[in-house]
Amino acid sequence: MASDPIRILQDLIRCPSVTPAEGGALAYLESVLTEAGFTVDRPVFTEAGTPDVENLFATIGSGAPHFVFAGHTDVVPPGDEAHWQHGPFSGEIADGMLYGRGAVDMKGGIAAFASAALDFLSEGGLKQGTISLLITGDEEGPSVNGTVKLLDWAAKKGHRFDAAIVGEPTNPQALGDAIKVGRRGSLSGTIIVQGRQGHVAYPHLAVNPIPQLTTLIRRLTAEALDAGSERFDASNLEFVGLSVDNKAWNVIPAEAKARFNIRFNDQWTRDTLEAWLISRLEEAARGAIEFELDLEPGGSESFLTHSETLIGTLSDAVERSTGRRPELSTSGGTSDARFIKDYCPVVEFGLVGQTMHQVDERVAVEDLVTLTAIYRCFLDRYFA
Amino acid sequence: MASDPIRILQDLIRCPSVTPAEGGALAYLESVLTEAGFTVDRPVFTEAGTPDVENLFATIGSGAPHFVFAGHTDVVPPGDEAHWQHGPFSGEIADGMLYGRGAVDMKGGIAAFASAALDFLSEGGLKQGTISLLITGDEEGPSVNGTVKLLDWAAKKGHRFDAAIVGEPTNPQALGDAIKVGRRGSLSGTIIVQGRQGHVAYPHLAVNPIPQLTTLIRRLTAEALDAGSERFDASNLEFVGLSVDNKAWNVIPAEAKARFNIRFNDQWTRDTLEAWLISRLEEAARGAIEFELDLEPGGSESFLTHSETLIGTLSDAVERSTGRRPELSTSGGTSDARFIKDYCPVVEFGLVGQTMHQVDERVAVEDLVTLTAIYRCFLDRYFA
Repeated sequence: MASDPIRILQDLIRCPSVTPAEGGALAYLESVLTEAGFTVDRPVFTEAGTPDVENLFATIGSGAPHFVFAGHTDVVPPGDEAHWQHGPFSGEIADGMLYGRGAVDMKGGIAAFASAALDFLSEGGLKQGTISLLITGDEEGPSVNGTVKLLDWAAKKGHRFDAAIVGEPTNPQALGDAIKVGRRGSLSGTIIVQGRQGHVAYPHLAVNPIPQLTTLIRRLTAEALDAGSERFDASNLEFVGLSVDNKAWNVIPAEAKARFNIRFNDQWTRDTLEAWLISRLEEAARGAIEFELDLEPGGSESFLTHSETLIGTLSDAVERSTGRRPELSTSGGTSDARFIKDYCPVVEFGLVGQTMHQVDERVAVEDLVTLTAIYRCFLDRYFA
Repeated sequence: MASDPIRILQDLIRCPSVTPAEGGALAYLESVLTEAGFTVDRPVFTEAGTPDVENLFATIGSGAPHFVFAGHTDVVPPGDEAHWQHGPFSGEIADGMLYGRGAVDMKGGIAAFASAALDFLSEGGLKQGTISLLITGDEEGPSVNGTVKLLDWAAKKGHRFDAAIVGEPTNPQALGDAIKVGRRGSLSGTIIVQGRQGHVAYPHLAVNPIPQLTTLIRRLTAEALDAGSERFDASNLEFVGLSVDNKAWNVIPAEAKARFNIRFNDQWTRDTLEAWLISRLEEAARGAIEFELDLEPGGSESFLTHSETLIGTLSDAVERSTGRRPELSTSGGTSDARFIKDYCPVVEFGLVGQTMHQVDERVAVEDLVTLTAIYRCFLDRYFA
């Protein structure tokens, strides 16, 4: 009897696994996968200042090729449940839609892959090689005790991956729209302008940092970073915050700050961006504005996956089930693929993202079934 | 025996009358003035949301001309007392300087005037007319339960003033520098730009209000309001705050705000400034920036006192005691003179302001004696 992605997704949605709570979701997956013959580990990672997080690593088979499916069972909070037509942890089906937090982001992707893998295994598809699932409970949270540590943990256990699919919702409108084959990088920072505090009635005795900061902001937004590249959207800088520590109306403040984030393509690195920022800021400051540029640690470089084995096989599987050749996209935000790319070629393909993080998050039952067929077709061809 | 401004100031400084505490300062004044024959009232004013404040109104004589000396016994906090060379409430004298919070702002002015008035009265100077002291305990605080209400209270008691001196420290460098004969007005407001919130990775779906706010800020700082006038410094706009309610690095915020304050001369009113602001903002917005201009209630119009009787007599008194003709100034911040101007001609003249609100606030004993002589000379001539 074929396994049922709809039932698996309903069971997963009924586990209230709002980050960092495990909510029973990993325990449920463990039981399903163990029954199918997987060896399952549930490492818990800890770090001072962040919640402990449970994770799951399941593996079956041996040797190369080693394919890993990556994802997360944690979900963002539902907000006010009264706004939902169907309870966020109900898994109810109505008019062909399955409702619940995580339906598309991304318990749906996990249910589809688990179902596909179970059928593939029960039908004797895995004659050679290894299938693993790398599932974290910390993708929507600080992402400290999740995929990064789980990858390291698996590497130390001797696992060497050859290809990975992250099951995040990658399709903007309809299943089959797009496989994500890379991501822009991300760099955040703060510009701090030092003025000299004073009384508004005596402006000649003060230096107001606000117009100065304005000059720097305008310089950074005056030109596009680039016009995009073959596989990437244009790089883009957005200011996300302004702050001045001053409650008074009669005080010219001492300091003004602006926070920004840059999403950048393969024409840039963190280092070349830093040089660009400094040169533009210095040009605008003309030696007359005392500023500091404070880049956040972390962030990520852009990446682009080139593996024809992975991309071609998955594209074929998508085309066979949807009749459409997916676009190879690098748009949108970051995902855990940015960590996996350091271990093996990685792409992302999952459901349609439209309702993710929204009230009444839902997946078309038909999409869930089709995604299961796509993953199954991929496994058939990848391990053929 | 002549009364002693040094002793009065020491006694006043030893009363810890940090706003809104009376600290014994008004009680002390009451006893000194009552002994000299003044009728003294101590009205307490209250208003929801602000502390109750004690005030003092002392009057002697009858009929016109009615001269009123205005001031405040409350002081700003001393900060860390360990930083003071001499205790902020000690009234210690060292190397010719009398130390303490309020030494120049403005217990020193009150001590000088009280001493001058007591001598003037004891020597039979007041043959006709009235001398009053209008002293608040709420000048350094919210200024709600102070001079405004005390003026109204006195008017209802039938007092009609002909001239007023506020004893605030008006001299930038040396006693005799300047009489303040008016003040610029003050208008505060907030510019609020509405954008559309979104994810930094999808900037085409959002509208970032930060560069838009920057455009508006630059328009308002691009031109001078005016070049000043005969008696006034140039009007000036200063931005005093920026804020965006967003802690995230990956979110384009929905709204950005900038707070500003304008000090304006007699070429402007609140209404003409509001029209100027709206026209410049609309010009910069070009219909493409959704903004709101939110002006703070309160503020004040500019004013200029023309009374030759008051200004000339005081200028003569200053020149006689210091050898210098004081500048007639309108520079600097607001004071309670902005309220008194609605009742009678008012000017401000007091000590040297350099150490006001600072650690080791202090007055040269010589200056205190000279100011007492100036006030005495003014009373002699005004009531001659």
